[in-house]
Amino acid sequence: MRFIAGPCFCWLWGSHFWPCSDDVTRQEDQIRDHGGDIDTAQARFGGTDWIDLSTGINRAPYPLQPLPPEVWTALPTQAATARLLTAAGAAYRSQAPILAVAGAQAAIQLIPKLSTPARARILAPTYNEHGAALRSAGWKVDEVTTLAALEGADLAVVVNPNNPDGRSHAPEDLLRLATRVGRLVVDESFADARPDLSLASKAGQERLIVLRSFGKFYGLAGVRLGFILGSQADIATLAEMAGPWPVSGPAIAIGTAALSDRSWTEANVARLRAEAARLDLLAQSARWKLLGGTELFRLYDTPDAEAARDRLARHQIWTRMFPYSDRWLRLGLPGQPAEWGRLAAVLRD
Amino acid sequence: MRFIAGPCFCWLWGSHFWPCSDDVTRQEDQIRDHGGDIDTAQARFGGTDWIDLSTGINRAPYPLQPLPPEVWTALPTQAATARLLTAAGAAYRSQAPILAVAGAQAAIQLIPKLSTPARARILAPTYNEHGAALRSAGWKVDEVTTLAALEGADLAVVVNPNNPDGRSHAPEDLLRLATRVGRLVVDESFADARPDLSLASKAGQERLIVLRSFGKFYGLAGVRLGFILGSQADIATLAEMAGPWPVSGPAIAIGTAALSDRSWTEANVARLRAEAARLDLLAQSARWKLLGGTELFRLYDTPDAEAARDRLARHQIWTRMFPYSDRWLRLGLPGQPAEWGRLAAVLRD
Repeated sequence: MRFIAGPCFCWLWGSHFWPCSDDVTRQEDQIRDHGGDIDTAQARFGGTDWIDLSTGINRAPYPLQPLPPEVWTALPTQAATARLLTAAGAAYRSQAPILAVAGAQAAIQLIPKLSTPARARILAPTYNEHGAALRSAGWKVDEVTTLAALEGADLAVVVNPNNPDGRSHAPEDLLRLATRVGRLVVDESFADARPDLSLASKAGQERLIVLRSFGKFYGLAGVRLGFILGSQADIATLAEMAGPWPVSGPAIAIGTAALSDRSWTEANVARLRAEAARLDLLAQSARWKLLGGTELFRLYDTPDAEAARDRLARHQIWTRMFPYSDRWLRLGLPGQPAEWGRLAAVLRD
Repeated sequence: MRFIAGPCFCWLWGSHFWPCSDDVTRQEDQIRDHGGDIDTAQARFGGTDWIDLSTGINRAPYPLQPLPPEVWTALPTQAATARLLTAAGAAYRSQAPILAVAGAQAAIQLIPKLSTPARARILAPTYNEHGAALRSAGWKVDEVTTLAALEGADLAVVVNPNNPDGRSHAPEDLLRLATRVGRLVVDESFADARPDLSLASKAGQERLIVLRSFGKFYGLAGVRLGFILGSQADIATLAEMAGPWPVSGPAIAIGTAALSDRSWTEANVARLRAEAARLDLLAQSARWKLLGGTELFRLYDTPDAEAARDRLARHQIWTRMFPYSDRWLRLGLPGQPAEWGRLAAVLRD
């Protein structure tokens, strides 16, 4: 078969491919950069024993328990989904209408289709998929740098706390903003350790949508699970767009267990908070300056981000640069003690 | 919290919910009926040891192997997705551009958004989600009963072989049809045992889209995995709509292994074919008449479908009725010998 034997593949995020031929325009220039591209790092720097700090995914994940066979074999039932949504509502301290989808990314894909494309504004810099999904759906997207500049938009996006710089906004400021835009989308993918920042409890009101990610804080990004909280009308429309069974049986079972486990959650918030401070100290020893961050990642100002990233990569530690800065380097937190040891050895060297 | 304590939930497919209050319009009348609603059966008839024959999901699933931890913890890599798509292309005997999504249902949700809504026609009766997704996206949908009546549609849908009646169409007839519609969508969710029917190898051409389901034939519907094969342009657009990481890490690992396992596939095609004939014999003993079917389900004409379904349900065997017929009953195939024994005991009684 041609695409097995052929020497090249054309890629777009790895979610599909087609065999290359001479008349095929390569699509690589459409690829948006992301963390988690550990196969890229392996291909470029060799080695297999990598520590991937290029994402904000907790490297000490929620411990997996054996799963009953029916989560694999059967279609997810309404009862199982109900248990998941009950656990999520409790974990996020919200009674708002809620929809489970296959990752916060799936929510980002759906939201631009909630209303007729018009003018969107995004508080930038931030996670690049919001702008990409909006533009792809026909929205005109402007990036702005203050909350005030979002006012008047038909749709406004705020990531709170923000990725990659950890910038955060008080709920009351965002609630005020919600009255001054057509619809406010608050992406709380990194808010698990900051319930004080969360607007999940207010998401039942019109014009406010809150996104939550399961995989980052619980360290299980491969599971693909996220949530959208919003008004009854918006959640009904999003559910119709998502269709039946958007989330896998294993995701439902694991999500229900993890989101119900208060003691694990509290212990991990405390641990991550302490370890974020520990990472900042290590960075200091490398003469990097802290720009901000969350409990799951830290952003540093370095003299030369590419040199810093490559130095770590030569020791099989992968970090995250950004196309718009030659000084910023973002690091997730190491997990096991051996990972801390390897990182410390390079940074103190 | 109100929605935990409250006496009622409003549901739409179980993929989301909101707490009921007196001012909330119940959404039950929007629920589309599906097989696999085993919790409904349990609630109505009691018991827990159910045999769910209400779907076309193979009850002798592909055997699961232990999964490496990174499929849970890390974002799926491009390399892992490449292996999955290579395995799928080989299994479906196609070199066409291909996209992996979270179940054939996810494909059904995306396809109506590929072009501006216009007039769609569906060869009916068939799986009800095609019409629902098209209407929801703004298409005018007509149901027709012959291939010829699909001609001239802006988008035409054929499920081949069809669910629930097993009606099938020769590839050459569908290829001819593809030249006479704006776009032809061929849903091959039940074609695994019928490669002679498949148009997957032709899906690279313009105006033809082929859907494949992973979960049905491999008996792993909870995994949520399906594929779309189509033209380069269509697959690129669908990939952009699906976004990065639409499929979970476990789905990628399991799908790659199962789709590469030719000997399991061939053995299961042979087994299912023999057991479909065995089910037809049992149905004969109950004086049901075979209307059609595939290797994964059989459709029977019964004197009274509701009475037949309820009789089986009282023995904890769940089957599928259709809102448009009071005589049709569809049964998936039992799996283990004990399941065959229980079904035979009721039907021969």
